[in-house]
Amino acid sequence: MCVLPRITLWVWPMLYGLGIINAEKSEFNEDQAACGKLCIRRCEFGTAEDQEWLTVCPEAFLTGHYWALFDGHGGPAAAILAANTLHSCLRRQLEAVVEGMMGTQPPMHLSGRCVCSSDPHFVEEKGIRAEDLVIGALESAFQECDDVIGRELEASGQVGGCTALVAVSLQGKLYVANAGDSRAILVRRDEIRVLSSEFTPETERQRIQQLAFIYPELLAGEFTRLEFPRRLKGDDLGQKVLFRDHHMNGWSYKQVEKSDLKYPLIHGQGRQARLLGTLAVSRGLGDHQLRVLDTNIQLKPFLLSIPQVTVLDVDQLALEEEDVVVMATDGLWDVLSNEQVARLVRSFLTGNREDPHRFSELAKMLIHNTQGKDDGATGEGQVSYDDVSVFVIPLHSQDQGSGGH
Amino acid sequence: MCVLPRITLWVWPMLYGLGIINAEKSEFNEDQAACGKLCIRRCEFGTAEDQEWLTVCPEAFLTGHYWALFDGHGGPAAAILAANTLHSCLRRQLEAVVEGMMGTQPPMHLSGRCVCSSDPHFVEEKGIRAEDLVIGALESAFQECDDVIGRELEASGQVGGCTALVAVSLQGKLYVANAGDSRAILVRRDEIRVLSSEFTPETERQRIQQLAFIYPELLAGEFTRLEFPRRLKGDDLGQKVLFRDHHMNGWSYKQVEKSDLKYPLIHGQGRQARLLGTLAVSRGLGDHQLRVLDTNIQLKPFLLSIPQVTVLDVDQLALEEEDVVVMATDGLWDVLSNEQVARLVRSFLTGNREDPHRFSELAKMLIHNTQGKDDGATGEGQVSYDDVSVFVIPLHSQDQGSGGH
Repeated sequence: MCVLPRITLWVWPMLYGLGIINAEKSEFNEDQAACGKLCIRRCEFGTAEDQEWLTVCPEAFLTGHYWALFDGHGGPAAAILAANTLHSCLRRQLEAVVEGMMGTQPPMHLSGRCVCSSDPHFVEEKGIRAEDLVIGALESAFQECDDVIGRELEASGQVGGCTALVAVSLQGKLYVANAGDSRAILVRRDEIRVLSSEFTPETERQRIQQLAFIYPELLAGEFTRLEFPRRLKGDDLGQKVLFRDHHMNGWSYKQVEKSDLKYPLIHGQGRQARLLGTLAVSRGLGDHQLRVLDTNIQLKPFLLSIPQVTVLDVDQLALEEEDVVVMATDGLWDVLSNEQVARLVRSFLTGNREDPHRFSELAKMLIHNTQGKDDGATGEGQVSYDDVSVFVIPLHSQDQGSGGH
Repeated sequence: MCVLPRITLWVWPMLYGLGIINAEKSEFNEDQAACGKLCIRRCEFGTAEDQEWLTVCPEAFLTGHYWALFDGHGGPAAAILAANTLHSCLRRQLEAVVEGMMGTQPPMHLSGRCVCSSDPHFVEEKGIRAEDLVIGALESAFQECDDVIGRELEASGQVGGCTALVAVSLQGKLYVANAGDSRAILVRRDEIRVLSSEFTPETERQRIQQLAFIYPELLAGEFTRLEFPRRLKGDDLGQKVLFRDHHMNGWSYKQVEKSDLKYPLIHGQGRQARLLGTLAVSRGLGDHQLRVLDTNIQLKPFLLSIPQVTVLDVDQLALEEEDVVVMATDGLWDVLSNEQVARLVRSFLTGNREDPHRFSELAKMLIHNTQGKDDGATGEGQVSYDDVSVFVIPLHSQDQGSGGH
């Protein structure tokens, strides 16, 4: 597994392109990346008598590929730890269930023994497929990695957190796991497919407000759980103003009381939206020690380390050579839309068919497009002041590269 | 407002068709329906000095149409109360915010006064539109109605609960609010659009498991929160079996402990899935007294009375005369797919252009199709043993019928 901290550009031309730029808003790049081959060993199950894991085969039983982007905040420590750790957690989680992953439908019992003759029927009825074990392994790996980061940061007296966006190519499928505000899209000739959703205080408003409803002590009397169009002030007292609580998708009016004047649990719009006035994301790794400035109010209870996982059935796509997945931190998506990125990708790849380094050049070009350099393709020249990292992954090559067993 | 308890077929031919059949599994029909004109009065706001609601105009300021289906369980009491009450709750909730509904964007202050000159900007930035007030009013009306039902049932010593599916046509939009397992779809010549989602123990698994995680006392040590492909038994002890917890979308394996052998919080598949072994739906009205048989374990903490609301911008559709919304209780959808219903609707309406009662005849025909009468159109002849209620609402007529102010 190769880990790539603090590098500017790294190239494995046939398999993907990577570009990273440090916006120099912090001494160290808070964006981190990792990628490499994922080698999953097989654990042989013992005989019926002892029912124990006997042998761990030393050779890889199943191989896949792994790409990950981590966007740090409050320093690079959590992002670096995640880049060094998450792939090991994932390998371990996958090895624990790999026996169940070999058919299209996993067995009820990992040993494969049928305690009840209709067990396969029950599994089928629930619609459980082998890919659900990979999703489960990704979910567990993120949690395990979060625990490791918590312990390591505490032990070393460091702080910080990071978002995590991971793509895994395995058994003809691409799994995209996301916790935070990075994004992955699939760009094909006639199609853009969004492979992840962003998790921010705005997109997770109801979950966050509900937690504050269940555990009001988390706000320590300093914040209001309710959402208003803007922060309220003395002049609003007694007036009926627009508001939303945890159970509402719609809006209503309420008469303003004094407690409504407190600082809102979620405040601001779009890129400015903050959780407890502090954090722009609502999922990720780390932040175990993070508190609201000058208070004892913790952020961690509101944060989820669990990712949302999307599965792309690569084998079912009639893949073309220029079908690529673009993974990038928010620095890219803040200034370029999915459509703009897709346009840039298509025109670049069409014009650079012979270049063996074209995927890396493309990643670099996408990053340059966030630096206000008008290349004529977008004509917008918006500038990102954030760190930006981009993976460009040609799916066609993965198809050939990822081995079976 | 006209309420239609326990009738078989009722006709208002130009505006819609309604069909109800009692499967005779209970003495009274547990399905109930209500429909009628929704007349919303305007509340005039007082002068700046007193800031009180002064006048309630006696005439309707805004009119719309209302259709509702309630599928009762544990007796018809809750469904009858809901059919008699929900429209009044909704009218009251809408009248409380109607001043804010007159433009496309509601004012920050219901009085319309600007405390802060950039208030319209804040409202715009949040993307709050007048329709969000209708969504909020529907959400509040369902909750208010649930409270009324709770009080009325307790006072009269009755029990029971019901699902609720409501459609409201107002200001050129159709709002569909759903709490339960009924369904509404829009059928057009070349399109089927699903206007509601079902809320069952299966579709709301994560929310329900999470509640049991936060408040384990709700299970009184009698149930396990975890999901397994089937109920575990002694032979499974010590084995590694497939499972899922509240935070997981994927599946993993866990070693079975004694506590895993308890009855599962959510058990069974599809139509057989039950919450706490008792209830097939996870949202609805009523059930305040419902307990697991022979225990003190309450169902109500796991149930939501809040609906999910879908908005259809009718004015933006190039409506044709045969575009209809089909609303029906689960008895219909258990035996007919959306596609089968759409096929039946299209062929019936095309063949009955001149019949002034055709929407009622269509509702009746759809119900007959659930009774195992093979009409050749579906050729399946599946039988529903449940009560079935169907509204067929031609959107074209609503467009002409629903007045402005």
